[in-house]
Amino acid sequence: MNDPRTPAGLAPASSPVSGDLAALLGALRATAAERDREGGHAAQEKQWIAEAGLLTLAVPTEFGGKGAPWLQIYEVIRAIARVDGALAHLLGFQCLQVASVNVWGNDAQRARYLKGTADAPWWWGNAVNPLDTRLIATATGDGGYRLDGKKGFCSGTRGSQMMTVSGHDPATGKPIFAVVPTTREGITVHEDWNPIGQRQTDSGSVSFDNVRVAAEEVLHRSENLPTPFATLRTLVSQLVLTNLFVGIAEGALEEARRYMTQYVRPWNTSGVEKATDDPYQIQRFGEMRLKAVSAEALATRAAQALDTAWSKGAELGAEERAHVALAVSEAKILAHRAALDVSEALFDACGARSTDAPLAFDRFWRNARVHTLHDPLDYRVRDVGRFALSGTLPEVSLYT
Amino acid sequence: MNDPRTPAGLAPASSPVSGDLAALLGALRATAAERDREGGHAAQEKQWIAEAGLLTLAVPTEFGGKGAPWLQIYEVIRAIARVDGALAHLLGFQCLQVASVNVWGNDAQRARYLKGTADAPWWWGNAVNPLDTRLIATATGDGGYRLDGKKGFCSGTRGSQMMTVSGHDPATGKPIFAVVPTTREGITVHEDWNPIGQRQTDSGSVSFDNVRVAAEEVLHRSENLPTPFATLRTLVSQLVLTNLFVGIAEGALEEARRYMTQYVRPWNTSGVEKATDDPYQIQRFGEMRLKAVSAEALATRAAQALDTAWSKGAELGAEERAHVALAVSEAKILAHRAALDVSEALFDACGARSTDAPLAFDRFWRNARVHTLHDPLDYRVRDVGRFALSGTLPEVSLYT
Amino acid sequence: MNDPRTPAGLAPASSPVSGDLAALLGALRATAAERDREGGHAAQEKQWIAEAGLLTLAVPTEFGGKGAPWLQIYEVIRAIARVDGALAHLLGFQCLQVASVNVWGNDAQRARYLKGTADAPWWWGNAVNPLDTRLIATATGDGGYRLDGKKGFCSGTRGSQMMTVSGHDPATGKPIFAVVPTTREGITVHEDWNPIGQRQTDSGSVSFDNVRVAAEEVLHRSENLPTPFATLRTLVSQLVLTNLFVGIAEGALEEARRYMTQYVRPWNTSGVEKATDDPYQIQRFGEMRLKAVSAEALATRAAQALDTAWSKGAELGAEERAHVALAVSEAKILAHRAALDVSEALFDACGARSTDAPLAFDRFWRNARVHTLHDPLDYRVRDVGRFALSGTLPEVSLYT
Amino acid sequence: MNDPRTPAGLAPASSPVSGDLAALLGALRATAAERDREGGHAAQEKQWIAEAGLLTLAVPTEFGGKGAPWLQIYEVIRAIARVDGALAHLLGFQCLQVASVNVWGNDAQRARYLKGTADAPWWWGNAVNPLDTRLIATATGDGGYRLDGKKGFCSGTRGSQMMTVSGHDPATGKPIFAVVPTTREGITVHEDWNPIGQRQTDSGSVSFDNVRVAAEEVLHRSENLPTPFATLRTLVSQLVLTNLFVGIAEGALEEARRYMTQYVRPWNTSGVEKATDDPYQIQRFGEMRLKAVSAEALATRAAQALDTAWSKGAELGAEERAHVALAVSEAKILAHRAALDVSEALFDACGARSTDAPLAFDRFWRNARVHTLHDPLDYRVRDVGRFALSGTLPEVSLYT
Repeated sequence: MNDPRTPAGLAPASSPVSGDLAALLGALRATAAERDREGGHAAQEKQWIAEAGLLTLAVPTEFGGKGAPWLQIYEVIRAIARVDGALAHLLGFQCLQVASVNVWGNDAQRARYLKGTADAPWWWGNAVNPLDTRLIATATGDGGYRLDGKKGFCSGTRGSQMMTVSGHDPATGKPIFAVVPTTREGITVHEDWNPIGQRQTDSGSVSFDNVRVAAEEVLHRSENLPTPFATLRTLVSQLVLTNLFVGIAEGALEEARRYMTQYVRPWNTSGVEKATDDPYQIQRFGEMRLKAVSAEALATRAAQALDTAWSKGAELGAEERAHVALAVSEAKILAHRAALDVSEALFDACGARSTDAPLAFDRFWRNARVHTLHDPLDYRVRDVGRFALSGTLPEVSLYT
Repeated sequence: MNDPRTPAGLAPASSPVSGDLAALLGALRATAAERDREGGHAAQEKQWIAEAGLLTLAVPTEFGGKGAPWLQIYEVIRAIARVDGALAHLLGFQCLQVASVNVWGNDAQRARYLKGTADAPWWWGNAVNPLDTRLIATATGDGGYRLDGKKGFCSGTRGSQMMTVSGHDPATGKPIFAVVPTTREGITVHEDWNPIGQRQTDSGSVSFDNVRVAAEEVLHRSENLPTPFATLRTLVSQLVLTNLFVGIAEGALEEARRYMTQYVRPWNTSGVEKATDDPYQIQRFGEMRLKAVSAEALATRAAQALDTAWSKGAELGAEERAHVALAVSEAKILAHRAALDVSEALFDACGARSTDAPLAFDRFWRNARVHTLHDPLDYRVRDVGRFALSGTLPEVSLYT
Repeated sequence: MNDPRTPAGLAPASSPVSGDLAALLGALRATAAERDREGGHAAQEKQWIAEAGLLTLAVPTEFGGKGAPWLQIYEVIRAIARVDGALAHLLGFQCLQVASVNVWGNDAQRARYLKGTADAPWWWGNAVNPLDTRLIATATGDGGYRLDGKKGFCSGTRGSQMMTVSGHDPATGKPIFAVVPTTREGITVHEDWNPIGQRQTDSGSVSFDNVRVAAEEVLHRSENLPTPFATLRTLVSQLVLTNLFVGIAEGALEEARRYMTQYVRPWNTSGVEKATDDPYQIQRFGEMRLKAVSAEALATRAAQALDTAWSKGAELGAEERAHVALAVSEAKILAHRAALDVSEALFDACGARSTDAPLAFDRFWRNARVHTLHDPLDYRVRDVGRFALSGTLPEVSLYT
Repeated sequence: MNDPRTPAGLAPASSPVSGDLAALLGALRATAAERDREGGHAAQEKQWIAEAGLLTLAVPTEFGGKGAPWLQIYEVIRAIARVDGALAHLLGFQCLQVASVNVWGNDAQRARYLKGTADAPWWWGNAVNPLDTRLIATATGDGGYRLDGKKGFCSGTRGSQMMTVSGHDPATGKPIFAVVPTTREGITVHEDWNPIGQRQTDSGSVSFDNVRVAAEEVLHRSENLPTPFATLRTLVSQLVLTNLFVGIAEGALEEARRYMTQYVRPWNTSGVEKATDDPYQIQRFGEMRLKAVSAEALATRAAQALDTAWSKGAELGAEERAHVALAVSEAKILAHRAALDVSEALFDACGARSTDAPLAFDRFWRNARVHTLHDPLDYRVRDVGRFALSGTLPEVSLYT
């Protein structure tokens, strides 16, 4: 059952995740408020995630990974997002980079990078922000490129061993996509990530100064057209965000429930003896849960559609891919709204004393607010509306 | 994919429903506006439904029925509700009465009534409205009862061959539950159903004047306690309503799309050449679809949970049954809201000319409005809220 | 105080309206449901309105009229709309035509038509629907025109003595605006108004077959540019609709209160003894009132701004006129939403039995739904948004 | 006109406020983000407010004050709240304490404290939080009391010269109400205010250790019953909060407009050249403004009702007072929602880059969120609902 108090993904019997997940969640929750205040890099916590074996969730079993289906991976992301949105994002993007190598790489690249991820294990960073075109990739004539410039919003690069990177190739006017070690000469990871929420996603900028990319590191050349299967990467990414929002909503609901049950007294004119009997509080929790549950149902449905599409590999057609994109957008819209609404309602449930800064209960809303601005909701609703009105399926784009 | 334009349930390959469903839907849609205006009894249309083989959807195959799982039954109800909410209700309640006999009846009763339904076939009426306690059941000493009094909101009794009936037993203060032929002496079906919507559900009142019920017609005696499995009847009923709401929302969306695409011109200051390019119209359809899709997702999830619980029969435990009840309530709340909102938005999409009475586009809202008052939404939200806040599962009641 | 139970406009001491208004309202309410069902022409009720002296509300005192400020006129319209949306519309449009003559007419025309209205009194019809350009006005060389063609949505023409009419002048590509007696040869008023709501507004079509318009009947020639003062006509019209919506919301709230207080029993699991103590019912009424009150507050504010602008006559500048237009749009948006929301919530308050067709409680929603489609809300929100974002004031248009 | 870009209250010609208000607002806005981060005491800014002559807004002219009507006072509070919610609260509560002395004090007390406020001028603090009953007032037999215990949420006490204080008198079971200098022996103002928003309201706790209150300092003795006029104090207080919410909404709208106009680029698939032409951005600003405008309209209406009631003094009846209370509650509900909604939508308007922590754009939402928890919205809606449903006017309570 979809009970936020015993969430799916918390190491059920069939899970590829080790039994330590509950302990990990408890440890993350214990310091989440404090780390939200301090921001910066969560080295210790990232270490715990690695030790829990989560870095290889998306690595196929043939390379020594867990080979978990997306449905299960997203359940883990959701579980972490309930207690720490920033670290859930880091793990989600870890899985995204692994998936990127998996779908874009040739056999040698997949062997090298996926097995490497399982063996080391490696944390992966992301220098692929598609709206930021300041990073130039100049072909070097030997199949490789030279990178110069800067990328913003490079989640997870700080503290990573490897990163994916996209650059603008002026010769073709299109992007290339490659893998480089984070320590490659000429790469500088800046510690300039200071947002109002999601403060430990290490999403600062990265500078590239005459950085060499060898031919065998190039996952995608700008002259090629991506297959429908390869463009699933975008949907994997969008479902990471979706499940993060669902997790934030569920986490806010859970914190509200705990605090309210324990500390809140009935309002002086309510006529009830316990706050949990207040009819308006009950309705509030009902509405909070309805938002979380419907977002979660659409997220689960979209993950199932993604898993089906994923299993088709090169056979995947453009239309089926577009239907998955539609399902992902529908889920993301509901999850976006659920995260904001539930994290705001938390305070109506918990009252004036719950605004004490050390509790940092506003981190749910701030985390949701920062991450729900990744791309505008309006254009996602437009995609759904175009389909509903004219049957037009969403096109492959940077965000769909 | 969940595309309202090619809805699930329209006789897919694996469906137990005959290939004539599409034709049936077309025929119902053609006269739905006219029949909404006239109200009264849809004898011809009920005949078509019978001929399409739909009366035995819920009759187990061992008795000659289709033995369809609830998920499929609800898809058929939804498909009909898209074009005619009243007839969808009649079919839904047909399946409900069949299910009632199936869960409450002993072997002889199941054989007699279920096989009879398949052979004849019979339409079943419903004189079970639990809030109306005016019908008195007096034990006759031979295991039977005598019925005297009246029942309101007896959907489907007019034009039926058989009916289920509940009566208040003054000796125990509890209800009995039985089957009688509609033509039984002393029964008068009144033609007094005249509501603002759902005008052909034949939900008028029925009078009982010294009506004999034989011992072998009694499905449930007032001195017994129902099992969790037997109380699934209520959830079957609530999911009928839920899917009816989903179907109304999907049908309103489909009518809006058709009319708007064909007839609506762009607003004079919109700056677009086709109304389908109007950015606000696109968003409206997006929001309409999001409401329909999320309601449908929760309805599907609840139907799956019901099918699982149903398959356990007498083994079904109270807690698992309560979790199904919770899922049903969550789905019903979203469907309730979707039906009202989408059927109101239909007009914003279609404009002033779409208010012409012969089109009867308001029937979607009126149908939704009448049926969403079956029981108050507030108390269903309360059930969800109590669970979210305190973990309290919904109790077995007349409506949950 | 703004108490819907003792509404402003019900003949307070200082009102220009005769003391019979309360009686008139009672008489209209008594038959509103029945007349909603039958549709057609409300000859008797229009007679009562005339006898109550309301036809001259907007006629200046110098011509024998009441000379009421708009604020008071709108209060009367609102009061009637609480019990009968269609007749409120007829009276509102009566005042609009009178105002049209007042702002567009020369001294002779004002004297002739305004004094005539007071003396007779005349009901005025409206053949000015600006989006319908099928009516051709051909200049006859003597300062007059010949009208040929058709107009739709001609509210109030049936049963009227006089009408305003706009026609398309092909020579200039612009509209002319004139007054003709409804009985003028060549004019045929069709009885073809059959909508789902506002069923007695007599808004059918009117045919013009070689209809002569004399020079002295022409209020506005197509070669002239209207002054800011003249374009207040559009705002007068939009505030008629706005106050109609407010009145519908207030009327639905009042019917809900009456029925609920008298007939509704508490829900069986509510734990309260009277339905009026149900916490969820109380919140519903609170929200209903909040919608009605905020719409009414903005409508009142806009009417005050209109009265100020109106008093400036030819001195009125374009910018001040635009600020009034903005205030009118803001009020109309809130009133639009209040009318729909409150008239839908009426049923949640009153329950299943309140859907009995003879009560016709759905007429509030149907009336609101028909009239709120006069022009799309989206483009009114756009006007407000453009001002909020860029400081751009709404332009003079057919609807603003 | 109610244009948020040229807000009312910014020193119009007829204002009692000096021409320096615009300069003050500019200065407060310049450091608002930084002071939000640091929290603590805004000594410098409070000094500026004093220098602008705002401390005597509510002091009658006979005592050397501005004697401004409440409507004007609230416009000033709103203007400050647009740029700094915390300092607006401090000024609002300054006026509240002044009003408290004015309505509760006898002639000598009014002369002493009101003239003192004008002469010094004094900042007043507030130790009156009615839900906190830990502060005990023991009668000393000479008409005075001894105070022992603690009060929480004592806005404005830090840095104040005078304070009002309420204590629980065990002998009568009712509260007393008095004035003491903040420096009185035994009073300790704690620097323990550390919330997520409204961080500079100095609303920490105050300890009282054997603090003497002389007879002539007692404004209200626990054995007396307050008059309707005296209980206007609560409504003054509630309208301070209401106007603070309106100001926060208007301020968030204004910041969104500035930043969006200057920095936001159109979305890559929007098809428009300027972000201000994006149809969805325009609608968002329209909806933001509609929320702000309707809240402001109800707040203005309530302030006018308060001014009328205030002017009646001891003549004020309980029913008229209750009608003002109703109007205040209606305004506060709309303002509460506007503040939260608009401050959240600010980010949808401004996009991902606007979440940079140094901008502190989340302060609007955090300020709104903290202050809207002063008392639960639910019970205010209940008051409105009870009136709408049963005509019951709100009772005098701690919050209404």
